[in-house]
Amino acid sequence: MTTAPRTRLSSDERRSQLLDLGVRLFATRSLSEISIDLLAETAGISRGLLYHYFGGLAGFQEAVVRRAAADLITRTAPPVEGDAVERLLVSMRGYVDFVDENYEGYLSLVTGARSGNESLRAIYDEARRTLTDRLFESDTDHLLEDTPAMRLLVHGWSALAEEMVLGWKARGGVTRDELVELITGALPALAGAVPSGG
Amino acid sequence: MTTAPRTRLSSDERRSQLLDLGVRLFATRSLSEISIDLLAETAGISRGLLYHYFGGLAGFQEAVVRRAAADLITRTAPPVEGDAVERLLVSMRGYVDFVDENYEGYLSLVTGARSGNESLRAIYDEARRTLTDRLFESDTDHLLEDTPAMRLLVHGWSALAEEMVLGWKARGGVTRDELVELITGALPALAGAVPSGG
Repeated sequence: MTTAPRTRLSSDERRSQLLDLGVRLFATRSLSEISIDLLAETAGISRGLLYHYFGGLAGFQEAVVRRAAADLITRTAPPVEGDAVERLLVSMRGYVDFVDENYEGYLSLVTGARSGNESLRAIYDEARRTLTDRLFESDTDHLLEDTPAMRLLVHGWSALAEEMVLGWKARGGVTRDELVELITGALPALAGAVPSGG
Repeated sequence: MTTAPRTRLSSDERRSQLLDLGVRLFATRSLSEISIDLLAETAGISRGLLYHYFGGLAGFQEAVVRRAAADLITRTAPPVEGDAVERLLVSMRGYVDFVDENYEGYLSLVTGARSGNESLRAIYDEARRTLTDRLFESDTDHLLEDTPAMRLLVHGWSALAEEMVLGWKARGGVTRDELVELITGALPALAGAVPSGG
């Protein structure tokens, strides 16, 4: 447990390198496919190494998901410039690209979060909360009145966005740009339908 | 396997009676809580009876979910009279009431559908598809142009509705009537935001 890492990399660097490998695998594999065998085969990560840095496979998967969630939040950060809808458009382009590039992993995260896995659900819920809270915080144009009704609707919009990207990946039907515009346009349309002060 | 039912009820009636009991339990329990022991304790349903009529517990749970999905479709049937939004309002009131009355079971169905359980997922997907298809079929006011973009958006709206009802059950924030109006108003608002012919 206290054996020193074998390379000259610091412990943090080595851990981070392993995570990078995990996140790359996560792009094209579901979480359940990220097994000890797969890690050993494709990335040369052994059971002992996983145990040393992450306490085991489950800890490694959780760390990978946590990193993927952090990446998602970074990738969807709205720019400082522009009006609310322009900034949302950039943010949603980042969201669609992220899901597109990490489809298998993202799908398994959504799935894992909805199923009984409590630690995955917590990471997923926190990421979602961060994304929706940010909408209210960065809403300098007062697109969204901060009421319980609007909070409920924005959470609904977030589920709509997820459903639409996953549906688009599975069945297509529109171009990427059309998808981004549909998701982006949905938010002000929904906000406009809330009775004022409601 | 071929033993006759002990009462004078026909085989179909007896099966249907067992399902009724299951659906009542489903209202206040998650699927995973519907065990052989619980069934025996609360409804006098034995392992042998389950095996005889449903091939076992999993078959019984699946039949319960199938009945619950059929109930949901019936409960949300829009009336014949009224314009599109009025009919949708009645339908959504039925939806909110159904989820409210069957919260534990519904939540476990959503959860089970998203997790790896293929047969639950199939029932859930079919129910959702029926509900969204019906929106297009009953759209005599041409609220929804039948394009790939609109189909994608209506599926998104369906996810929004589910998220909002479950969020409302978990956290409240608005009255039942406000919730029904928010979900109902969301659909024409979203439809109006789709570029025509897009």
